[in-house]
Amino acid sequence: MSIQLDFGKLGGLIPAVIQDHSSGRVLMVGFMNEAAFQKTVETGFATFFSRSRNKLWLKGETSGHKLVVKEITTDCDTDALLVRVEALGPGVCHNGYESCFYRKLDNGEWVERDSRSYDPSTVYGSHL
Amino acid sequence: MSIQLDFGKLGGLIPAVIQDHSSGRVLMVGFMNEAAFQKTVETGFATFFSRSRNKLWLKGETSGHKLVVKEITTDCDTDALLVRVEALGPGVCHNGYESCFYRKLDNGEWVERDSRSYDPSTVYGSHL
Repeated sequence: MSIQLDFGKLGGLIPAVIQDHSSGRVLMVGFMNEAAFQKTVETGFATFFSRSRNKLWLKGETSGHKLVVKEITTDCDTDALLVRVEALGPGVCHNGYESCFYRKLDNGEWVERDSRSYDPSTVYGSHL
Repeated sequence: MSIQLDFGKLGGLIPAVIQDHSSGRVLMVGFMNEAAFQKTVETGFATFFSRSRNKLWLKGETSGHKLVVKEITTDCDTDALLVRVEALGPGVCHNGYESCFYRKLDNGEWVERDSRSYDPSTVYGSHL
């Protein structure tokens, strides 16, 4: 591709915003390195670089809650990605919510404003 | 607030996804340090930390295209923010588009899929 993504600003990583393609809800933010981006494009499933595990991470590899890529866009500085997806399964968040963004700032306090969409212990078992 | 944001993973910064509160369109991704986050909460206008200028950056300070905060959420790991806003002015992107995400991946090429919503030379003048 003629326009290269800028992986240099964060030491090889760029943030990837994951948005539900039908509802428009922002589901999570992950980070991709160049290999994760290529894997995402080649396979059609969102793949990240896990900073905690220091390796490529196919989202849903444990839970089955994969993210089917519908559209990939980049921003003016080519240092961020917006990936519109169809999310397989009841929720993206490993804590059992549809979206990782389930806490809202309310008068200086973070309060949960969503209910769980699934029980994470039945999906992740002893991985949590 | 009882739950602290985790600014440690990216050397004092967290990504902040900016989403139009009415259309749901993702407009940009910026980075906030703790001071930018506090400023955003206190003033009600999205304020970032500019990595290129190494200082706080009130979005719209030059263009007038400020972002009025409607809702702030954080994710499960408290290392990302989703800020729903009302965007003042015709576009958020300094290149003249409604959203910074105006290029789409199409068969391995990044192609512009949006039209400009304003002429950036009339807004930014010699700043570009």
